Amino acid sequence: MNKNSSNTMALTPNTSNKRETVCIFGTGDFGRALGHKMIQSGYHVVFGSRSAQTSSLIPKDAEVLSHAEAAQKAAIIIIAIQRQHYDFLAPLAEILHGKVLVDISNNLKINQYPESNAEYLAQVVPGAKVVKAFNTISAWALQSGTLDASRQVFVCGNDVEAKQMVMDIIRALGLTPLDQGSLLAAQQIENYPLQLFPMWKFPVFLSLGLTAFFFFYCLILEVIYPYIYENKDFSFFIAISIPNMVCPILALILLGLVYLPGVLAAIIQLYRGTKYRRFPDWLDKWMLCRKQLGLVALAFAAVHVLYTLVIPIRSFVRWRTSSYTVSQALNNKTVSLNTTNAWLSDSYLALGILGFFLFVLLGITSLPSVSNNVNWREFRFVQSKLGYLTLILCTAHTLVYGGKWFLYPSSYKWYLPHAYMLSLIVPCTVLVVKFVLIFPCLDKTLTQIRQGWERNPKPSE
Amino acid sequence: MNKNSSNTMALTPNTSNKRETVCIFGTGDFGRALGHKMIQSGYHVVFGSRSAQTSSLIPKDAEVLSHAEAAQKAAIIIIAIQRQHYDFLAPLAEILHGKVLVDISNNLKINQYPESNAEYLAQVVPGAKVVKAFNTISAWALQSGTLDASRQVFVCGNDVEAKQMVMDIIRALGLTPLDQGSLLAAQQIENYPLQLFPMWKFPVFLSLGLTAFFFFYCLILEVIYPYIYENKDFSFFIAISIPNMVCPILALILLGLVYLPGVLAAIIQLYRGTKYRRFPDWLDKWMLCRKQLGLVALAFAAVHVLYTLVIPIRSFVRWRTSSYTVSQALNNKTVSLNTTNAWLSDSYLALGILGFFLFVLLGITSLPSVSNNVNWREFRFVQSKLGYLTLILCTAHTLVYGGKWFLYPSSYKWYLPHAYMLSLIVPCTVLVVKFVLIFPCLDKTLTQIRQGWERNPKPSE
Amino acid sequence: MNKNSSNTMALTPNTSNKRETVCIFGTGDFGRALGHKMIQSGYHVVFGSRSAQTSSLIPKDAEVLSHAEAAQKAAIIIIAIQRQHYDFLAPLAEILHGKVLVDISNNLKINQYPESNAEYLAQVVPGAKVVKAFNTISAWALQSGTLDASRQVFVCGNDVEAKQMVMDIIRALGLTPLDQGSLLAAQQIENYPLQLFPMWKFPVFLSLGLTAFFFFYCLILEVIYPYIYENKDFSFFIAISIPNMVCPILALILLGLVYLPGVLAAIIQLYRGTKYRRFPDWLDKWMLCRKQLGLVALAFAAVHVLYTLVIPIRSFVRWRTSSYTVSQALNNKTVSLNTTNAWLSDSYLALGILGFFLFVLLGITSLPSVSNNVNWREFRFVQSKLGYLTLILCTAHTLVYGGKWFLYPSSYKWYLPHAYMLSLIVPCTVLVVKFVLIFPCLDKTLTQIRQGWERNPKPSE
Repeated sequence: MNKNSSNTMALTPNTSNKRETVCIFGTGDFGRALGHKMIQSGYHVVFGSRSAQTSSLIPKDAEVLSHAEAAQKAAIIIIAIQRQHYDFLAPLAEILHGKVLVDISNNLKINQYPESNAEYLAQVVPGAKVVKAFNTISAWALQSGTLDASRQVFVCGNDVEAKQMVMDIIRALGLTPLDQGSLLAAQQIENYPLQLFPMWKFPVFLSLGLTAFFFFYCLILEVIYPYIYENKDFSFFIAISIPNMVCPILALILLGLVYLPGVLAAIIQLYRGTKYRRFPDWLDKWMLCRKQLGLVALAFAAVHVLYTLVIPIRSFVRWRTSSYTVSQALNNKTVSLNTTNAWLSDSYLALGILGFFLFVLLGITSLPSVSNNVNWREFRFVQSKLGYLTLILCTAHTLVYGGKWFLYPSSYKWYLPHAYMLSLIVPCTVLVVKFVLIFPCLDKTLTQIRQGWERNPKPSE
Repeated sequence: MNKNSSNTMALTPNTSNKRETVCIFGTGDFGRALGHKMIQSGYHVVFGSRSAQTSSLIPKDAEVLSHAEAAQKAAIIIIAIQRQHYDFLAPLAEILHGKVLVDISNNLKINQYPESNAEYLAQVVPGAKVVKAFNTISAWALQSGTLDASRQVFVCGNDVEAKQMVMDIIRALGLTPLDQGSLLAAQQIENYPLQLFPMWKFPVFLSLGLTAFFFFYCLILEVIYPYIYENKDFSFFIAISIPNMVCPILALILLGLVYLPGVLAAIIQLYRGTKYRRFPDWLDKWMLCRKQLGLVALAFAAVHVLYTLVIPIRSFVRWRTSSYTVSQALNNKTVSLNTTNAWLSDSYLALGILGFFLFVLLGITSLPSVSNNVNWREFRFVQSKLGYLTLILCTAHTLVYGGKWFLYPSSYKWYLPHAYMLSLIVPCTVLVVKFVLIFPCLDKTLTQIRQGWERNPKPSE
Repeated sequence: MNKNSSNTMALTPNTSNKRETVCIFGTGDFGRALGHKMIQSGYHVVFGSRSAQTSSLIPKDAEVLSHAEAAQKAAIIIIAIQRQHYDFLAPLAEILHGKVLVDISNNLKINQYPESNAEYLAQVVPGAKVVKAFNTISAWALQSGTLDASRQVFVCGNDVEAKQMVMDIIRALGLTPLDQGSLLAAQQIENYPLQLFPMWKFPVFLSLGLTAFFFFYCLILEVIYPYIYENKDFSFFIAISIPNMVCPILALILLGLVYLPGVLAAIIQLYRGTKYRRFPDWLDKWMLCRKQLGLVALAFAAVHVLYTLVIPIRSFVRWRTSSYTVSQALNNKTVSLNTTNAWLSDSYLALGILGFFLFVLLGITSLPSVSNNVNWREFRFVQSKLGYLTLILCTAHTLVYGGKWFLYPSSYKWYLPHAYMLSLIVPCTVLVVKFVLIFPCLDKTLTQIRQGWERNPKPSE
């Protein structure tokens, strides 16, 4: 341990002024990575191991001792072993009494055990002060420098001083501790790295369901109907034509669903005359996943744009255009420009382009680093004003695109409306209700309610 | 207050080692959210309220007392009430003497009052140490965990120790304090959350003005001129054709304007022979909004790309193509491939694609999280070298696209040049001047000046 | 120095409780910017200068003294002068004995001197405690507030207490210190701001080499071959047609190369039966630049998409389409729809669109701010599951696009295979090997090995 600054790894500060000693139980990947980082930050590190013998993988400047010896050298002991082996700590309970034990373990499944690992550790070693920390950090992130990976470390524990000691170490390693309260939060902290996009579940499953529904709806109208009545094989529509109907429909519906809960909440607040009562649970959950709903809608819109732009390259479209031109030439016919058609065609394209452009802007502002750099007023301006403008443009795009077909009875195959008509229900509802809500009389009341005014204030408060 | 860890909200550490007591005046949304977060981080929180009675919304582990009682329990008092009600603090002046008062208030308008709320608070309670903090954090961000929202808290105050105490609390809550100096900075800190994209104002208004000008310019040349002289109705050009002229023109002009101030600054420095004199004010402001100008230019370029890619889908274009082919067939004519045309057409498309690609790259590197991960040299390489390459490619794209028209007199309707010719003025000027500036004789002098050399050093220094 | 809070620059807290005094040697841009920021954060700043006379550029509240006088006033001295002038510190060695000297200098080239500037400083003033810091921060970032620029400050030094003092200052300025160990790390810290995308070098040079190869390969087959044998001038293919072959080929090969090292690593681990032996050096390096390889591949894919979407606008393509239609009309021929062709055309377009969409998703999740907001499991899900799906879709896109040509002998000009056939080698190999590796017998062994199991454990451990 007396090797000094001639060492090439830039690890050894003068031994005279080491900060303090930290003990690590376990010499696995994470224990070693943490030890290495701590030595670099000026701590003296002692590993506690079954075989008290230095392996080549253990950082050079660390001591390796037996568990009991190592524990006696430090006030803080990091338990870098798996929960199944916590039992072996029981005999050490006397040595560990009063020490700060840092539980860094993770499980393989969410809620795998009835109590969190940290609480179990506190049961096994009752006299110790258990702090949960570091479980969201990977050994890889520790080793490769923390420039790229997340630097937030969730911490919880019942003893405030112990927690403070651990948080000081976390700060010294260049990480940011986030105090999550008492050890009861450990369950949640342990579940965090096991979650797989929890906020995305509802939007993704909803859109999968709607996709399936509209896919078969369009399949029936566009492939099966002409096959039965006109004996035409349009099965290849499955590859592009039908997805290019489903995508814009879903984009529009999901975008409508982003703004629907806000409108519902306004109605509920107006009806109740107060903002101090909680919304129904489903509405709360819905409002929390609006960002995800919007991003899924943006994904469908982006795919729709790509599908639309490849139209002229498609073999079928080139054949259709060519056949049409040839038939015109053979019939010696010249068609003059239909200005109305040109207007309609150019309008829905222009509306779609502007709508998509604003939609992408909304998506960019929801990137964490961008939204962190705008203040609250700017964020609301973008997400609310620009969001409604996007919804209006996209709804108008759909209306202009298909408006003329509403009146043709021939477009109602098997008495079913075109799929895109169904897609207009949600966004049109949202826009109409929102339009009503911005009438001065309602808007004024709503603003008052949101500033804390109550129609029937309770006498007790 | 003696409830303990049986509590399910993970809020209560052992009461024995609470960090310190913080008092919060006011039980509104923000006061409660802040109190909740502080309890979670181990503080003992006392609410001061008019009606000293616990509401169901107030965190369980907090005490609620009268203002006077609550104030006596803590050294730090957070004033979570609106400025209009600060008067009621005057009678408490004696109790508040020497205490740290944290002003967290915001106004509704920029510079609403002659003095900042924090300075007003210092006037109302002269004996207290007022610190401004937390006003940029929303109650929502505090409650939902601070993963997503900005974690920077601006702090200012005249008393360094008081400021230090508040900054310690901010750090304990997992937020990052940023010291902004004395209480005079409070005005600026209070204005910050009320700003609406201050850096974007000039670029956005400039581009709106230019858009209007070029829109009407193109309208006259492309719609009104053929209507008068050829009696053709091309009014539908308003939807796509004219925007698709205006967008690339604005993208090119704004991109030129991004690099123009750098070139002007170099000329000024060369002329003055020193870097130690300030640039004129307008140049300073212009240089500060270059990033925003560039992003607006990118937005116009992106819309231009979309407008261009939908060309073959437009009803008018399909009619024109079909008519042309039919007329050829009817005239029994076959046109052979014009290789020069093929070269020109492919070249300007390729130049445009590569220019747009680099432009998007520039846009991505200006995302905060990306620019934070590159060092200064990399950032300058991307923004300067790649930026000029983008400008060269986009200018070349425009030149190749319309080059042949410069010489045709028929393209000067009403003696007016094509709009895109106007768009070339700024970027061509920038490129020519930049080309002159990289001549060794000028470049060497400029480098020396930027390293601190002066042509006529002042005798006094 | 007795000016007080009447000052309009919000710089002066009450002089009574200044934190501590810091001395800065040198009044250049960076020294002044740092001094200004420190005064704002409550420090008392003394500048040491050759001419002890206040310049208008120096912050108002700072003192300017001679070097010797200034050094005596503070425990920490920031050396804001260039390495070439360090000599002048030698005579001051006695005064500087025991002081903390902060070296903030940068060089112009990587490894410009045999020892780092900080180590050289420690040699010049042997009795001082040298700490390296601040060199990655620009004067501009300090002045303009640190909202936008990176806030990480690398720190190293042999004396832990000195380092701690400097890190406290860094924190007080609102920056994040990152302890990098002893002064031996200074060389690396000084090289950091001079690096130019070190991780991108290999991917960029590899792709430039491959681009050149495939460009000439395609040039020979598509331009030179028809010129020699058919005397046709297709030289304009250089602008779009050939780049649009090269881009997808490179995108596919590079995407394959992203997943190849993972597959090789799995084979090596299976063969060795342990994860505790290091991979060969080339494999380690390859694995570290997978993200960059993938992003370069995405760039090629994006350019390919743009090149493909402009196809119908190209003059050559419009001529070809028109000629074909005219010849059909003149020959009085009507072609009926070929459903197989329609299927193939639509399928490869749909596969390409979905592949590109997933590819863009992968790109977005590799943005630092996004990857910081997902946990480890989510990141692996996206980069591994979605990554392989992208590779499968893109490979299928290429196979369906050109599948029919494999069998035509006419497509083998000069006995050379089509370029896109070469592009399929790497991705198909990766997919086949990966398919073998997920067979249960192999997958189970691999999972065990990665959890630490060893086939032949060493007796000593």
